[in-house]
Amino acid sequence: MLRLYDYLESGNGYKVRLVLTQLGRPFERVELDIYKGASRTPEFLNRNPNGRIPALELDDGTYLWESNAIIWYLADGTPLLPAKPLDRARVLQWMSFEQYSHEPNIATVRSWVLHPKDGDDRRVMTPIKRQLGYAALKVMEGHLKTNPFFVGGAYSIADVALYAYTHVAHEGGFDLKPFTAVNAWLKRVKSQPSHIPITKG
Amino acid sequence: MLRLYDYLESGNGYKVRLVLTQLGRPFERVELDIYKGASRTPEFLNRNPNGRIPALELDDGTYLWESNAIIWYLADGTPLLPAKPLDRARVLQWMSFEQYSHEPNIATVRSWVLHPKDGDDRRVMTPIKRQLGYAALKVMEGHLKTNPFFVGGAYSIADVALYAYTHVAHEGGFDLKPFTAVNAWLKRVKSQPSHIPITKG
Repeated sequence: MLRLYDYLESGNGYKVRLVLTQLGRPFERVELDIYKGASRTPEFLNRNPNGRIPALELDDGTYLWESNAIIWYLADGTPLLPAKPLDRARVLQWMSFEQYSHEPNIATVRSWVLHPKDGDDRRVMTPIKRQLGYAALKVMEGHLKTNPFFVGGAYSIADVALYAYTHVAHEGGFDLKPFTAVNAWLKRVKSQPSHIPITKG
Repeated sequence: MLRLYDYLESGNGYKVRLVLTQLGRPFERVELDIYKGASRTPEFLNRNPNGRIPALELDDGTYLWESNAIIWYLADGTPLLPAKPLDRARVLQWMSFEQYSHEPNIATVRSWVLHPKDGDDRRVMTPIKRQLGYAALKVMEGHLKTNPFFVGGAYSIADVALYAYTHVAHEGGFDLKPFTAVNAWLKRVKSQPSHIPITKG
């Protein structure tokens, strides 16, 4: 059975849990307390040398890491990943945007708010990261004003990737109220079949 | 003809130029001085609302942005992107690693060294980014000690993505000498057919 190394609060872990659940794939979850170094032990570094969750142990005993690579692998050939080459490239475009322009700002500030001892040396970046997080939300708002979902008019892993940290952005102090199109999209994503909340392990 | 909005010094732009050249695809290049705001004009934001190069104008007049999404789109169906689903997921894994753990550290420090007025407020992060950049190089070194390329034993866009900013890391003050496996890999990538240097527009 697929085994997911995970941390419940992590949006990156949630992406994988959500996709596995929506595809009806059974999996075993191993919770690691990443704030106590559980993803940096020699044992875990043999699974992911980059020392991060999520990491998925496959049936052949090898590991796949990086949340967006994992959900791509799971979703390929299902309705969660479109078939047309250009649509697939646009899914990757929005997932790259998420990992570069969205997550390092919105998710990082959230983790610093939720874990007051985390990131001490880096907290000087909080105001800049907050500004960059709002800039990412503005890009999403612009797209969602005229599109129900990120790619091809249908729910896909591009939406999963961006939903993961957007729907908990308020936990990092981001005010989502002005982003009306984003809020409508959050509701659409939440109403998809077999949706689960981030709190469900 | 494909039109690439680009900046010669950018490793992200270079990834696309290199793949287009190695695939023998003709393209027109539009150079934007990103340090003078050319990627943040209203006109360019209509091409990429995230205000970054590279952006590729396709034959149908639409735009694709995010370097790794663009090279995936171009390479799909060619020897630069493997066919097996798990190999493809591992290409995405290493490209995600590049955009999250490598580029924001190695490329950003290089841009601050090359452009002394860039990133003033963020330069306080230089020592941390340098440390994280070396951590990324260490992950690459570990993998390349027992693998000639990043995925499936063959040159792919995973190598292109990681080569782009690794081969110029010294311009940001990174000392690559201790990374012997990385250096041997850099030579293997450079010796691929139709390779071009980052300085070729």
